[in-house]
Amino acid sequence: MRRSIVNDPEDLVPQALEGFVLSHPQQLALEAEHRYVTRRDPAQDKVGLVSGGGSGHEPLHAGFVGPGMLDVAVAGAVFASPTALQVLEATKAADAGRGVVQIVKNYTGDVLNFRIAGEISGDDAIETEIVLVDDDLATDTGDDGSGPGRRGTAATVIVEKVCGAAAEEGADLAAVAAVGRRVAASARTMSLALSAGTHPGDEEPQFTLEDDEVELGVGIHGERAARRVPFTDADGLTDLLLDPLLEELDLSDGDEVLAIVNGLGATYPLELNLVARRLHHRLADAGITIGRSLVGPYVTSLDMHGVSITLLALDDELRRLWDAPVRTPALTW
Amino acid sequence: MRRSIVNDPEDLVPQALEGFVLSHPQQLALEAEHRYVTRRDPAQDKVGLVSGGGSGHEPLHAGFVGPGMLDVAVAGAVFASPTALQVLEATKAADAGRGVVQIVKNYTGDVLNFRIAGEISGDDAIETEIVLVDDDLATDTGDDGSGPGRRGTAATVIVEKVCGAAAEEGADLAAVAAVGRRVAASARTMSLALSAGTHPGDEEPQFTLEDDEVELGVGIHGERAARRVPFTDADGLTDLLLDPLLEELDLSDGDEVLAIVNGLGATYPLELNLVARRLHHRLADAGITIGRSLVGPYVTSLDMHGVSITLLALDDELRRLWDAPVRTPALTW
Repeated sequence: MRRSIVNDPEDLVPQALEGFVLSHPQQLALEAEHRYVTRRDPAQDKVGLVSGGGSGHEPLHAGFVGPGMLDVAVAGAVFASPTALQVLEATKAADAGRGVVQIVKNYTGDVLNFRIAGEISGDDAIETEIVLVDDDLATDTGDDGSGPGRRGTAATVIVEKVCGAAAEEGADLAAVAAVGRRVAASARTMSLALSAGTHPGDEEPQFTLEDDEVELGVGIHGERAARRVPFTDADGLTDLLLDPLLEELDLSDGDEVLAIVNGLGATYPLELNLVARRLHHRLADAGITIGRSLVGPYVTSLDMHGVSITLLALDDELRRLWDAPVRTPALTW
Repeated sequence: MRRSIVNDPEDLVPQALEGFVLSHPQQLALEAEHRYVTRRDPAQDKVGLVSGGGSGHEPLHAGFVGPGMLDVAVAGAVFASPTALQVLEATKAADAGRGVVQIVKNYTGDVLNFRIAGEISGDDAIETEIVLVDDDLATDTGDDGSGPGRRGTAATVIVEKVCGAAAEEGADLAAVAAVGRRVAASARTMSLALSAGTHPGDEEPQFTLEDDEVELGVGIHGERAARRVPFTDADGLTDLLLDPLLEELDLSDGDEVLAIVNGLGATYPLELNLVARRLHHRLADAGITIGRSLVGPYVTSLDMHGVSITLLALDDELRRLWDAPVRTPALTW
């Protein structure tokens, strides 16, 4: 069993948000009633950026609030969407008069509540644009449009960073949304887990695997994958993620990519660095350069032991927006 | 069992170092033979700073190489000291002509190998000073000097940051060592674990606890504590760490502290934020302000599920050195 460092699980999210903001008093402020986090010094005269979703994926989203990235992050319960009312209030807080881009991971509840909030916010004369992030290649079921489509995972960090930089540069609402959609359209992610996370207060993980199994294509809420594949070493596990990404993305000799090697919770840095190493070697063999990268826990699933790889082909605009200054609790340069 | 993302465990540290440096090509360089990481652009005309020790504590130490912190970090195998030869070569690499401060956590092997290297390095006309970090209150056995003394844990991050800033300001060898020793003399840490870490390639953790037990005073190598205490909630667990710290440190109403709420590996941010929250409230009740803080995994023990709290009373000099700019993979402002 896995025990949690928790008080009453019902109080977990508000208490954790309080602790997080207390730890960043010069950067962040908390609106406790609607459970959203804002920059302590709100930005003026720029397109606002709000994101949010269920908790349990920290540092996403509140860890990315600050100059160069989000204005506001709104938190639901663990793995549950914030309500439409929360999203509405968070959207109002993000508005500085030039409209608000809402960055939404593609899950039914999140999409529904952000859409409702977007419609209602029109009553307050706030223009909104939704950028839907749906990078998880494992849930790509083709183009028939009947299902919920690909899930949103670690590419959210790139969308938030790139949109944040564009907004900071003074781009208008349509332009900020457009560059976010461009990232969402081309970034893809593959994830695997060796063990699932455990909900705070629960004693058992969300699922269990046999000792020789790997969950290939796992979701960040512990969604099971279509495939369980044999366990193998770090290089082999990396290849399991990279091969379908290379098959999907149209990368060529000479291309430069942004890569995120993302720990899903309980994966330690030695492990992530082995994945990063193999990724560098494999891409170098194909003539592809990792021009920019993040390696660490950025979009987690409680204490899941697993890793995801996200790849995005870089061009001059995306490289410039990625490199632009950012100052948030989880990302600073 | 806990499976690892690893190739041959014998190759783990060199492969992980390679992956880490490949992921930070603009900041870091690797000397593969002696397994140390340097700044890509070595500093000139300042006191050099080298640290190191066993692996498995990432981001310590290589994550703290860069302007404002370390010049060189040298890595042993998991939980094993680097050899005296490695330390010697790393010390030479850190030298820019003004001597080298060696920051050493208080463990028998580390102390021995850094001492030998310090003595040999005199043959190369490199002046060295050792700053010994021994902050772990749980291993304080009094003043008789017979035992190994307190272990070195998360206060190492503060020593590396403060010495790094002093060196960057141009302080001489004695002054850099002196401020490091001042931090080491007054910072104290308490740690607890709900479960132990698992060595890469092993299938079982270093120790197991009953469901109602907490290891209070655990070490970062999985050293057992003298005490096992009953499991309780996040506030109660925080109090278990804070009460002995407050008893030891002579803090008064009006004091300001630097606090590190350190995750030991598999502790997720929601959990750490609850600990941070309780810590803020308890100290505020005593009239003590947390003027600066870090909350996250800074000095880990593989995938141990646990947390430590480090407190250091701040004064003007320490606050200034802490606030000075730093640009490393794991700490940037």
